Amino acid sequence: MIPIISSHDLLQLASGDMLSLQVYKFIGNQPGKKVYIQSNLHGAEIVGNAVIQQLIEFFSSLDSSEIQGEIWLVPVCNPLGTNQRSHFFSSGRFNSYDGQNWNRIFWDYEKKCEYLVEFAQSQLDNEPEVIKSNYRAKIQSAWKKELTKLQQPKSGTVSEQYRAKLQSLCLDADYVIDIHSSSNQGIDFLFCFAARQEAAKYFLIEYGILMTEYNGEAFDEAFLKPWLALERELNKLGREIKFDLESWTLELGSGMTMNPESIAKGVKGIKNYLSYKKVLTTASQSDSKPIKLFTRNAVNSYYAPRGGMIHNRLPLKTPVKRGDRLYQLLSFNKKKQLSEVINIHAEIDGLVFDISTNQCVNQGEYVLDILAI
Amino acid sequence: MIPIISSHDLLQLASGDMLSLQVYKFIGNQPGKKVYIQSNLHGAEIVGNAVIQQLIEFFSSLDSSEIQGEIWLVPVCNPLGTNQRSHFFSSGRFNSYDGQNWNRIFWDYEKKCEYLVEFAQSQLDNEPEVIKSNYRAKIQSAWKKELTKLQQPKSGTVSEQYRAKLQSLCLDADYVIDIHSSSNQGIDFLFCFAARQEAAKYFLIEYGILMTEYNGEAFDEAFLKPWLALERELNKLGREIKFDLESWTLELGSGMTMNPESIAKGVKGIKNYLSYKKVLTTASQSDSKPIKLFTRNAVNSYYAPRGGMIHNRLPLKTPVKRGDRLYQLLSFNKKKQLSEVINIHAEIDGLVFDISTNQCVNQGEYVLDILAI
Amino acid sequence: MIPIISSHDLLQLASGDMLSLQVYKFIGNQPGKKVYIQSNLHGAEIVGNAVIQQLIEFFSSLDSSEIQGEIWLVPVCNPLGTNQRSHFFSSGRFNSYDGQNWNRIFWDYEKKCEYLVEFAQSQLDNEPEVIKSNYRAKIQSAWKKELTKLQQPKSGTVSEQYRAKLQSLCLDADYVIDIHSSSNQGIDFLFCFAARQEAAKYFLIEYGILMTEYNGEAFDEAFLKPWLALERELNKLGREIKFDLESWTLELGSGMTMNPESIAKGVKGIKNYLSYKKVLTTASQSDSKPIKLFTRNAVNSYYAPRGGMIHNRLPLKTPVKRGDRLYQLLSFNKKKQLSEVINIHAEIDGLVFDISTNQCVNQGEYVLDILAI
Amino acid sequence: MIPIISSHDLLQLASGDMLSLQVYKFIGNQPGKKVYIQSNLHGAEIVGNAVIQQLIEFFSSLDSSEIQGEIWLVPVCNPLGTNQRSHFFSSGRFNSYDGQNWNRIFWDYEKKCEYLVEFAQSQLDNEPEVIKSNYRAKIQSAWKKELTKLQQPKSGTVSEQYRAKLQSLCLDADYVIDIHSSSNQGIDFLFCFAARQEAAKYFLIEYGILMTEYNGEAFDEAFLKPWLALERELNKLGREIKFDLESWTLELGSGMTMNPESIAKGVKGIKNYLSYKKVLTTASQSDSKPIKLFTRNAVNSYYAPRGGMIHNRLPLKTPVKRGDRLYQLLSFNKKKQLSEVINIHAEIDGLVFDISTNQCVNQGEYVLDILAI
Repeated sequence: MIPIISSHDLLQLASGDMLSLQVYKFIGNQPGKKVYIQSNLHGAEIVGNAVIQQLIEFFSSLDSSEIQGEIWLVPVCNPLGTNQRSHFFSSGRFNSYDGQNWNRIFWDYEKKCEYLVEFAQSQLDNEPEVIKSNYRAKIQSAWKKELTKLQQPKSGTVSEQYRAKLQSLCLDADYVIDIHSSSNQGIDFLFCFAARQEAAKYFLIEYGILMTEYNGEAFDEAFLKPWLALERELNKLGREIKFDLESWTLELGSGMTMNPESIAKGVKGIKNYLSYKKVLTTASQSDSKPIKLFTRNAVNSYYAPRGGMIHNRLPLKTPVKRGDRLYQLLSFNKKKQLSEVINIHAEIDGLVFDISTNQCVNQGEYVLDILAI
Repeated sequence: MIPIISSHDLLQLASGDMLSLQVYKFIGNQPGKKVYIQSNLHGAEIVGNAVIQQLIEFFSSLDSSEIQGEIWLVPVCNPLGTNQRSHFFSSGRFNSYDGQNWNRIFWDYEKKCEYLVEFAQSQLDNEPEVIKSNYRAKIQSAWKKELTKLQQPKSGTVSEQYRAKLQSLCLDADYVIDIHSSSNQGIDFLFCFAARQEAAKYFLIEYGILMTEYNGEAFDEAFLKPWLALERELNKLGREIKFDLESWTLELGSGMTMNPESIAKGVKGIKNYLSYKKVLTTASQSDSKPIKLFTRNAVNSYYAPRGGMIHNRLPLKTPVKRGDRLYQLLSFNKKKQLSEVINIHAEIDGLVFDISTNQCVNQGEYVLDILAI
Repeated sequence: MIPIISSHDLLQLASGDMLSLQVYKFIGNQPGKKVYIQSNLHGAEIVGNAVIQQLIEFFSSLDSSEIQGEIWLVPVCNPLGTNQRSHFFSSGRFNSYDGQNWNRIFWDYEKKCEYLVEFAQSQLDNEPEVIKSNYRAKIQSAWKKELTKLQQPKSGTVSEQYRAKLQSLCLDADYVIDIHSSSNQGIDFLFCFAARQEAAKYFLIEYGILMTEYNGEAFDEAFLKPWLALERELNKLGREIKFDLESWTLELGSGMTMNPESIAKGVKGIKNYLSYKKVLTTASQSDSKPIKLFTRNAVNSYYAPRGGMIHNRLPLKTPVKRGDRLYQLLSFNKKKQLSEVINIHAEIDGLVFDISTNQCVNQGEYVLDILAI
Repeated sequence: MIPIISSHDLLQLASGDMLSLQVYKFIGNQPGKKVYIQSNLHGAEIVGNAVIQQLIEFFSSLDSSEIQGEIWLVPVCNPLGTNQRSHFFSSGRFNSYDGQNWNRIFWDYEKKCEYLVEFAQSQLDNEPEVIKSNYRAKIQSAWKKELTKLQQPKSGTVSEQYRAKLQSLCLDADYVIDIHSSSNQGIDFLFCFAARQEAAKYFLIEYGILMTEYNGEAFDEAFLKPWLALERELNKLGREIKFDLESWTLELGSGMTMNPESIAKGVKGIKNYLSYKKVLTTASQSDSKPIKLFTRNAVNSYYAPRGGMIHNRLPLKTPVKRGDRLYQLLSFNKKKQLSEVINIHAEIDGLVFDISTNQCVNQGEYVLDILAI
């Protein structure tokens, strides 16, 4: 089947040139869920573009009867981030205009939502599908207000105008997948909402970070958080519903690189997840693979205690014991003294989870993450 | 009198060079309050350095009997921010390493403080000065823990290591003044805590923004917020105490400039405030000037609805009526159409409060602020 | 008359978005010269966009009989430069990818031209118009080779690919005008080739910098230099020809601003020049205004001898005498000493010609220019 | 033996903090040549710092009788470059203030030198050592003028003030070694002056780029070029002298990394070269290794013909044949079309010599270098 490809004005640059979003839609001949997959929200995190390209090729090889529902794909979903350079490097993790992290800008309905308690109460006698539909209508109505505000003379910030276009594509989705990677050099893992962890194993990935606290401004959170809030309110009222809505952030490898293993892992995991969700209908059967889930505070970041150069750092995935040397810091001075080589040891047992691309550090700059296991 | 000048290691750069903080202390021969004044926390906001230099000259002309307590002055308090350049411009509003706004990184004891309720209860029979002293001890003890943490192998981020040095200088102060300016082009005003607004008039400045909500990560907030929290708890328990602790942010004019009027206004206001506080003892009497206080949401920011060049914008301080044209946007396109001139009108009555230095805007970039009056 | 507007693919960004050049052509109903006018080659230098917009409006008000030949206008001629931001500022004087100054990248035929002496000899018996036509053919043929090279697998740098598109628009022009401004804050003036200085007075502008040496990589130079070389060779052979080909850089005011006086001066000067050149046919008569021409080394740049803040600098256009104080530098230190105020005096008589937008300087950063007069 | 360590003020930052150069000198107890070695002139090229640290350790293990002459070492020789960050990355290849490449700013005496012909003539009867000494005096005298100029009110640019400090350390050296690396990812090689190529083999390195043309603004060129000019003039007058003065740029591996093999190769090569030059006196004997020398135009750079992501690029050191696929470009568009995968093939036979760290490219950005062999 051939995707429907649409292009949407995103932001007009000072020169008058227009940046756009391009959406590739595969619409099955059976109605069903809407899957929304994007990549490259942070500028350096390009690997998901290859994942999406391979998914487009794969879906194109299917017959429309093999997809139930529809799949929307948005590669290079943040042109400002992707195209931003400082010297040779992709510095678009944050907007160089205002320092805003591109994944901390999203519209979280829960924060706007008034009367959620009253709404929950009003829905107690409804079927889940009806509640879902009513809540969606509430979200869409608030969203329309937000969009209208941007049409006023004050308009809105780059972040507000950007998210207006991006979130309009996915607010009505059922499953959202946002493909990231380390902005440095990292292993493959996923971010998983605690309330949705049972599906994590279908991504066939070894590690996951369990999100128990979040404030809603990340893309995945902005999508799911309002629904989790509603589930919580209904639960308080004695109604236990889990809506079939999910949101995932896949972290595939390292920044500024197109690692083939990470690409393959991403493609395989997403295909399997979609089979599990019956969006892909003809896969014999979906697999599952046990995933090791950790909370965010299992990730221990090490920062340079002094300025200097990182030397002899343990490579990615090395298991470490408390007290093991993690790296050396070659530190020069301007006090007429010899340089020093400082040994930095692990505070706890774990695994080298992420390392800085840059081995030159000013005091306080990032060196590595240890995942406590 | 001659100041005691001390220099403190701040952060070591990758090259081994050390950035420092230099503190100028004027210590009166009578014990009393500690005043802490800093400038240039944001890189472009340099005007406060001249204010501090003039204050140093003025205090130097005094006899030590004319100061009660002590005054600490820290100009260029953020060398990383001050020295950062992108092309000719001072881009150090945020750290170019991680996008962190330099004034959203501070350690707020309230967030760390456990058992505040219990503490408040335990102090009900104490005199205010004793409560103050006990709470300070609690803060200092938590702060020591924070500093100790940075000595561990994980160390801390640039922000954490920076604030460790800076906040160590002022946690035991009584009056804190942080001198900023617009990073663009703005009028002179101050940020004022609602609970301390009666003293605002002694700064002899026309406008003030009343802070009613804050999360504690700005410098002024980080200092005062824990005390306001304690006052609130004591109040709940029927004890109404207002500690003589204050924190102010002065906003003096425009970024990247040393406007003489703004400097003069800053110097005059601070001297008068210190007279009112009896830190300067020989001033005949302190003046006061009515200040127009507005809440933060009275500041209405306008952002470019399209990319282009700002044309015919109303100048700073212009009063505007709803519907007045604020500026024109000359917007080019690449669609084989003529350029457009778009008129942007005021949504509400007010005053042009701040304008962008850059008259070239990508869609969503900042154009001006209207203060609703 | 209505312009013919065309849009040309310029550079494709990593995200797949395409930057374009848009050209507005006014073609008179009488054949004649080709005028090429562009603006905003350096990112901050936006004032020329307004000049071009007003010219477009003016030409649109004419009848096609009132233009002899054709006028091509290219506002925002460098989208990469115009749209580049670092924090709030337009840092696009150089490409942030490789540090290349956008006005030192152009293709200079003279440097590629082999056998210029032989060519000159071969043309001695020809009429000037024939020589011009033959030399143009030579240039175009070399240019085609350059364009072909970019189609090879190695392709070319951003600069090479950019100039390929831009210079293709103007290599066959007769009069080229490139509108710049100071990237800081400057007065209005023009750059004038020594060999074309007699026409300078028609721009009705007070000051001009006479170019006697140039290496051909600036836009104006790249256009005219090969022709000056040919004139020189012919001259050596006893043939004195001055081709009616001219190239000008107008410098209109300050960066990041749309100064109305500078815009007006630019529009007036260009219209008058085009009348003088008979491209505009109905103007009663062209005016002229004596222009003060100086060589490049009459511009004396002052740089900060120490780090600090610029204070009490003389404003733009102030006449100065040798020994006059130009500015003060408020310089702090971290050596436990008081700050210093350093007075900087003029080395020679002159005029304040340009001043830095940023009054905060690291040692060696730019402060001001004095034009020796 | 213990080095003499001195620290020299370099540049004062706007905050008043001072950047410094620190020099480590090992002075043998026999007079002899002066060796000058520096590293990290470009911000990302940190590997030489480890080379110098190991050399310091090695020289420290020697007795002063084992060194003839003196060895000066200057690691982190460009603090502005080393400390510069844009996001996580070391962007200090060029000065972010003015775009100047830090290795194209140096003072080249040949360009200032008047009367070189006359000087050469005046020296024809002198011994080489006398000529050398007389020319050095000429250079030093011109350098003093340059330094004096910077003391005038106009002072000088960052580049001029920086090089004033750096070149003062080495103008009287005999052998200069400047340790660089690729700012991207490269193989180890050296830059070698054609007139000094016979000594190249003592660096025990496989590849070298032979410099036949240079304009003197790189560090190595600025040192040697005036001497080569003098040799040329003397030669024209029939006097064939080759002064024992040499200048080398070692390129060791990749940017932002501390590759152990590159470090080891650098240390070994420099020690061997110093043995060959009899500065290290006790090494049994110096080795030599045939070096493959290529001219600069043997390095063929490939740039992205479109925007996109680099995929399946051949790794460093891969031998390639004309027509081999070098990499694929995954190119998206916003024209409602499927993405394309573009194959880029080698134009000539060679070796993958250098590759970009960033696999995301805007059109015209760098992808890789092929060394034609």
